[in-house]
Amino acid sequence: MLETPATPAPANREGLILHRHERLLRALEDSAFDALVLNPGPGMRYLTGLNFHLMERPTVLAFKIGHPPAIVLPEFEMSRLQALDFEIDPFPYTEDPATWGNAFKQMAHSRDLSASRIGVEPRSLRFLELEFLRDAAPEAQFISAESTLAFLRARKDRVEIETMRAAVAAAQQALQATLPMIKPGITERDLSAELTVQLLKAGSEPEFPFAPIIAFGPNSASPHAVPTDRKLRECEPVLVDWGANVESYFSDLTRVFSYGPPSEEIARIAEICEEANRAAREVARPGIPASDVDRAARAVIEQAGYGEYFTHRTGHGLGLEGHEEPYIRSDNEQILESGMTFTIEPGIYLPGVGGVRIEDDMVITDDGAESLSTLPRNLVVL
Amino acid sequence: MLETPATPAPANREGLILHRHERLLRALEDSAFDALVLNPGPGMRYLTGLNFHLMERPTVLAFKIGHPPAIVLPEFEMSRLQALDFEIDPFPYTEDPATWGNAFKQMAHSRDLSASRIGVEPRSLRFLELEFLRDAAPEAQFISAESTLAFLRARKDRVEIETMRAAVAAAQQALQATLPMIKPGITERDLSAELTVQLLKAGSEPEFPFAPIIAFGPNSASPHAVPTDRKLRECEPVLVDWGANVESYFSDLTRVFSYGPPSEEIARIAEICEEANRAAREVARPGIPASDVDRAARAVIEQAGYGEYFTHRTGHGLGLEGHEEPYIRSDNEQILESGMTFTIEPGIYLPGVGGVRIEDDMVITDDGAESLSTLPRNLVVL
Repeated sequence: MLETPATPAPANREGLILHRHERLLRALEDSAFDALVLNPGPGMRYLTGLNFHLMERPTVLAFKIGHPPAIVLPEFEMSRLQALDFEIDPFPYTEDPATWGNAFKQMAHSRDLSASRIGVEPRSLRFLELEFLRDAAPEAQFISAESTLAFLRARKDRVEIETMRAAVAAAQQALQATLPMIKPGITERDLSAELTVQLLKAGSEPEFPFAPIIAFGPNSASPHAVPTDRKLRECEPVLVDWGANVESYFSDLTRVFSYGPPSEEIARIAEICEEANRAAREVARPGIPASDVDRAARAVIEQAGYGEYFTHRTGHGLGLEGHEEPYIRSDNEQILESGMTFTIEPGIYLPGVGGVRIEDDMVITDDGAESLSTLPRNLVVL
Repeated sequence: MLETPATPAPANREGLILHRHERLLRALEDSAFDALVLNPGPGMRYLTGLNFHLMERPTVLAFKIGHPPAIVLPEFEMSRLQALDFEIDPFPYTEDPATWGNAFKQMAHSRDLSASRIGVEPRSLRFLELEFLRDAAPEAQFISAESTLAFLRARKDRVEIETMRAAVAAAQQALQATLPMIKPGITERDLSAELTVQLLKAGSEPEFPFAPIIAFGPNSASPHAVPTDRKLRECEPVLVDWGANVESYFSDLTRVFSYGPPSEEIARIAEICEEANRAAREVARPGIPASDVDRAARAVIEQAGYGEYFTHRTGHGLGLEGHEEPYIRSDNEQILESGMTFTIEPGIYLPGVGGVRIEDDMVITDDGAESLSTLPRNLVVL
């Protein structure tokens, strides 16, 4: 799906949200949806700046062409709307759950949602909100609007890219402050706690994309390891996968270290991963499918004979979500465009031995791609 | 809904999960559901010990009488199942999204879910999982099983209560380490960051129930304030609302301070809140409705003439979720039972002036209630 050419996004924050509404309404005109309904999460944050959390009380935001956005929300949250620099119609409800359904009905009536095709976010909308919406608009059809919304959000504007650059800088600064703690005897859990503290000191919000992953030795052979009480031994790999949150935008990096020289095999797979990472970064540019980036990394690892140990995709989009479009998979023919941001993170995992992954955060530029992350990519011996 | 009397829960971890499965299957027998389907979140954690996160890949766990639990999950997560001490049937899928629907269909077929009544968690199940389930069992009806699951989880076993006691202790220790930072000139944001660091040092997991709320002066009049760059002035209220996470169980406390003596009005509402908190703690015991606890707190504040400024319920259940059953509301007739855990947090909010809230974490005992939190409840002048 291609977007109608638009006026460029403002380079600063003023008018940014209204510009996003214009893009959304244009996308709605071209879509199969009569309306879009979002609940708390990255989509709502992108379109309002409001940072509501998913709670036991439902909150939804509705867009329909020809109307200002509508919001159903708890009465005590109304004061948050005062900070918004655009018109919004509130439909508040009280603490008594018996009043919630009525607020949904009033909103649905005001936007004539009955019998309409309503686009929703499949990874945000819950059974809770869906049941209230169904009661309020029993004839409506609810359909995934994932690609419409993902498409809007995938191409970051200048303000978003600079925010992500700050999230990468905070992560890098935090890691550098943590490196002196990597000594034999420290546990994965303690090293993860120290990196967490350093992320906060470096300016990250406490809502990280994920808790820092620290994996020593054979534990590093699991792509989604959880820190344990294992103590670091000399010469074994130390895999660090971590990220920061700056103004709700995430970074997500991985580097590998060892205290004392690693085994020959770990050193070898580290070199292959670094080379695979470089190949993928070099091929990334606007106009090519995401699959080309995956294939560039995968080819290096396959040629080195480790293809079966690279068990996941090469990367994923990054922004207000830790995983979003574009997915860097061998079967994803989505065309990369200027402003898209994603990870490149080839890895090799040898069960019982150890693993290596080298992960950078990329932005597609007008004629190529830039890595927002700049830390050395080799296995650093401490 | 009353549970069939059961063998008591084991006092230690061994057999705890199987005991929960027995309770769940007994609840299923008495329920309107043929099966229960859970996705990642507190329910899955409670019933498996698995700490999956909500991702772009769907994961669901299914219970049906006469079968071991079934789980649909990404293939690369299979290794996590090895740590489980109970039988589970896995239905894995690969990185290719085209294979996901098939894994759901195989699971649904193995459990004969077509045309059945499937209980789900309305605050966890997303449109994403629901659509896969609907495709796999097109004749099935999906119904909220919230009360069945909430009822199971509301009465904590001994292991859970001791874990929550540890979460309260970590929060209290973190606050005490932060108090010396409360000096004129510090910002809400910096004080919140320091408290976050101290929570981690005190042993909290990084996934807090919420980021610490720090609100100075008039900002404390908002029950859900977000820390700003406002600098502390002498004699204004400092409201601190914070909590820790120990093994996925939460604490949630609020205390109020001031640097230099507070105004007469703030001192007065602090005394009223402390008295309201005490009244609610004293009335809490097994066999009474939750509403009685709310009314005890509310009566104190109303009699003092501040009823209209106590704008929320008196408390909420606490455990694997930051907000869960039982809700301490004037209209909740749910009967309190031994093992239930919840907050008591009366507050008074004077717009433009400031607010006070005093929040404790309670557990219902066999003959009364115990506050897990022990910090002084008066407005402490620093």
